[in-house]
Amino acid sequence: MLWSGWGDPAKARELPAKVRELLHDLLGVRAPRGPAATLESVRLPPVGLPSSSLDGLAAITGAEHVLTSHEARVRHTRGKSTPDLLRMRAGDGSDAPDAVVLPGSHEEVAGLLGLCARERIAVVPFGGGTSVVGGLAASRAGFTGVIALDLARLDRLRSVDAESMVAEFEPGVRAPDAERLLAAHGLTLGHFPQSFEYATLGGFAAARSSGQASAGYGRFDDMVVGLTVATPSGTLDLGRAPKSAAGPDLRQLVLGSEGVFGVITSLRLRVRRAPAERIYEGWRFASFAAGTAAMRALAQEGPLPAVLRLSDETETVIGLAKPDAIGSSGGSGCLLIAGYEGPPAAGRRVAARAVLTRMGGEPLGEEPGEVWERGRFSAPYLRDSLLAAGATVETLETAGFWANLPRLYDAVRLSLLGALGTAPPPLVMCHVSHVYETGASLYFTVVAPQEDDPVAQWERAKTAANAAIVEAGGTISHHHGVGRDHREAYAAELGPVGVAVLQAVKARLDPAGILNPGVLIPVPGR
Amino acid sequence: MLWSGWGDPAKARELPAKVRELLHDLLGVRAPRGPAATLESVRLPPVGLPSSSLDGLAAITGAEHVLTSHEARVRHTRGKSTPDLLRMRAGDGSDAPDAVVLPGSHEEVAGLLGLCARERIAVVPFGGGTSVVGGLAASRAGFTGVIALDLARLDRLRSVDAESMVAEFEPGVRAPDAERLLAAHGLTLGHFPQSFEYATLGGFAAARSSGQASAGYGRFDDMVVGLTVATPSGTLDLGRAPKSAAGPDLRQLVLGSEGVFGVITSLRLRVRRAPAERIYEGWRFASFAAGTAAMRALAQEGPLPAVLRLSDETETVIGLAKPDAIGSSGGSGCLLIAGYEGPPAAGRRVAARAVLTRMGGEPLGEEPGEVWERGRFSAPYLRDSLLAAGATVETLETAGFWANLPRLYDAVRLSLLGALGTAPPPLVMCHVSHVYETGASLYFTVVAPQEDDPVAQWERAKTAANAAIVEAGGTISHHHGVGRDHREAYAAELGPVGVAVLQAVKARLDPAGILNPGVLIPVPGR
Repeated sequence: MLWSGWGDPAKARELPAKVRELLHDLLGVRAPRGPAATLESVRLPPVGLPSSSLDGLAAITGAEHVLTSHEARVRHTRGKSTPDLLRMRAGDGSDAPDAVVLPGSHEEVAGLLGLCARERIAVVPFGGGTSVVGGLAASRAGFTGVIALDLARLDRLRSVDAESMVAEFEPGVRAPDAERLLAAHGLTLGHFPQSFEYATLGGFAAARSSGQASAGYGRFDDMVVGLTVATPSGTLDLGRAPKSAAGPDLRQLVLGSEGVFGVITSLRLRVRRAPAERIYEGWRFASFAAGTAAMRALAQEGPLPAVLRLSDETETVIGLAKPDAIGSSGGSGCLLIAGYEGPPAAGRRVAARAVLTRMGGEPLGEEPGEVWERGRFSAPYLRDSLLAAGATVETLETAGFWANLPRLYDAVRLSLLGALGTAPPPLVMCHVSHVYETGASLYFTVVAPQEDDPVAQWERAKTAANAAIVEAGGTISHHHGVGRDHREAYAAELGPVGVAVLQAVKARLDPAGILNPGVLIPVPGR
Repeated sequence: MLWSGWGDPAKARELPAKVRELLHDLLGVRAPRGPAATLESVRLPPVGLPSSSLDGLAAITGAEHVLTSHEARVRHTRGKSTPDLLRMRAGDGSDAPDAVVLPGSHEEVAGLLGLCARERIAVVPFGGGTSVVGGLAASRAGFTGVIALDLARLDRLRSVDAESMVAEFEPGVRAPDAERLLAAHGLTLGHFPQSFEYATLGGFAAARSSGQASAGYGRFDDMVVGLTVATPSGTLDLGRAPKSAAGPDLRQLVLGSEGVFGVITSLRLRVRRAPAERIYEGWRFASFAAGTAAMRALAQEGPLPAVLRLSDETETVIGLAKPDAIGSSGGSGCLLIAGYEGPPAAGRRVAARAVLTRMGGEPLGEEPGEVWERGRFSAPYLRDSLLAAGATVETLETAGFWANLPRLYDAVRLSLLGALGTAPPPLVMCHVSHVYETGASLYFTVVAPQEDDPVAQWERAKTAANAAIVEAGGTISHHHGVGRDHREAYAAELGPVGVAVLQAVKARLDPAGILNPGVLIPVPGR
């Protein structure tokens, strides 16, 4: 993974001329300021942990699994939000951990948490490092130091129960490896978020990830039937049945907890048979309202395609549903991508097409679907190129009930347009890519010319959007999580009693407060 | 509701001669000891609450909504488990509340909790009073007194959002009233547990109820998209979107909390269009194993009927799937009931029939399905008649993953046979009535000749079954809940860290510990 951007540097590409023209003509984007920092030039704080602590960590994992090199620390600094990338490109490594520790078992994780609690060392659980909400930048205040607890060595498929259709994984398995390991059994998770190529199963669970085929396979939290969690106060082992009436579902307290209660060391996941066929196709709707009505009909009356994604008018015109073909296609109205995976993809497709047609959709054939599919993981690469070209570009998302969706859509759009100025106005695009019977997500992409301080520029926009989401009654995140960036908005969404509940759980499981401090939960008394 | 049994006394029926013969010949059941107590003769403890407290309660709700009459107290004593009924029939009202209080609003509930916390009055939230796990018998120790907080006055459908398919209800709405109110909008919840005729929506949520059509409509916890909860520490208002990645899902902490954290005062529920047709039919499988394999195929590959219920060999022979026809039908093998509700019931039925046929099922036509449907809520009436006839009869249930189901089935059966003796052996019957991709529920019905102390007799059996469920890796309840009867087994299932989490949440939301003391959560330090 590129330390200062996304993905495999070999896959980085020059922006097509059309996109450069777009940036210049539409947004007045100028060339960027000077070159980005090199990895070697990133400024890191000195390693603050005493050598006795480093020795203690090494005694648990073996010295070869405690890294304090410049490169290891840089590669575990923050996540992959635009402000994260901008800070790294500016050579700012101030959030770097003192050390990177790679445990090899549940017992080693438990041992590390015990040591860190005793020595007041903050612990940032680290999977794929793909957080886009500041989930990997712990508060140092009050701690001896900070370690990144990298789960990369916990990378095994432990067991497959083909009768129950449950697979047990360690948390550090990356999504492509999980699919490869399952494919040997003819199985799949069907979880394909945009972070697919790098993110880990533990991270998906800890942050309640949702993939592009969520309509067909469910969100990641739907797939989790069991969890083992190492906490500073002992081990939680949850999930004796698919569903239970034995009290509150504590699995749902761990899911979305972003490492602040404990470290997931094992996941039991519902798996599916790998689909024999996949068909993706495009549809055009006259308006975003008409397209969302069609999605709602599919979600409420069925049948639901595995993939369902609708671009609004602006995103359609720009062609963002097809990142590899951006600026070259587009067209009027709103592009909808529907994907069928099966068997029985064919039968389901026939029924879904009838609904889409009835709701005013115009079929565009499989070409737009195939283009979307080829580019489904490439948007983060595009962001890197746009940032390098002098644009400020970032995404944010929310979800709400169907009846509230138009209000939420307008509120977020207006907040971004208001915060980012009008000379020229930024490009604000939106798509719906996750639907439920009662509502859906909204995913916004924003492109604006970079100001002199692009981090401050985006923070201004993000603050406005967060406030708009809270005020308009949406949730602050449908699938990105909370991290630091959504913490205050999350507290507003949850209310003081809800926050108090999380703080009580945190105090019980992590009394020293070492786990991911500053993330998710507002600190009591502030 | 009959104070000492189930339902409408007018619907009570004599046992058919065939059942009497069965009881006598198979189990050696003798006539019962003397007549049951009358309502008037039930022995109640004196009202322990000082009049100043009663005045305080009345100041919040109005004096007419604070009841201390003998009848009101008897009618709010315990729930509807067999031990509950046996104790009431013996005139034992020792668990009666001092007073029954009926709040008329969220604010009144909040006010009552505040008063009770200040004056150390235990509060038992009371919906339909149908708990079968001791969920309504609070510990008195350390409290000034106990009130039943009857939510019957909170009985309104507040709003219907037909676009989002969400209806907002007050918690005291009984299930038949909810269906009647929704039917006026062409909608349904589709939640039909055996307690349907009396239980309330708040109770369904607080105890994670699951209905007979759960395969089609989901469990009740699947239907809840939002909750308002009055706690002694303030109000929780949860659920801004169908799904969210904004932290842990605190709705799932309230669901199943059985009133120990707070009182649900509003529920936002996902609703469906009322089905245009309902078809129920019977199938015969050669064995329980063959039948469960067919259910598993439907759950994992689809299509899933709305109702899916498989009796084991013993339950089939006795005819328990058809309570109105018990003893008269039966037959060999295992009876499966499949129900389709739609549209499109017909298409789904064709596809499901193909799977059932492929898996070895023999179609029996609609008659067995219709007989099941007519008797779907009558089993509790049958229990009353059997108890009166001198049998000890009760049900219990669990759930597990498919691969573990045979082990769980054997363990529970053997524990019951072992605990209840062999001269003659009790009748232990089982059915599967809730299926998931990864597993299913097991629901046992036990009939034995009454011993001199039938309460002790059943407690012996129940203790053995609880231990067997924990040891065999099942959950202690799929849909009955925890109450007092499953509390210790639940703690074993959850482990000490899980229990500590619940205790921490309880201490934060209900620091005086007034809410349903003794239910769900083991008391710390014991």
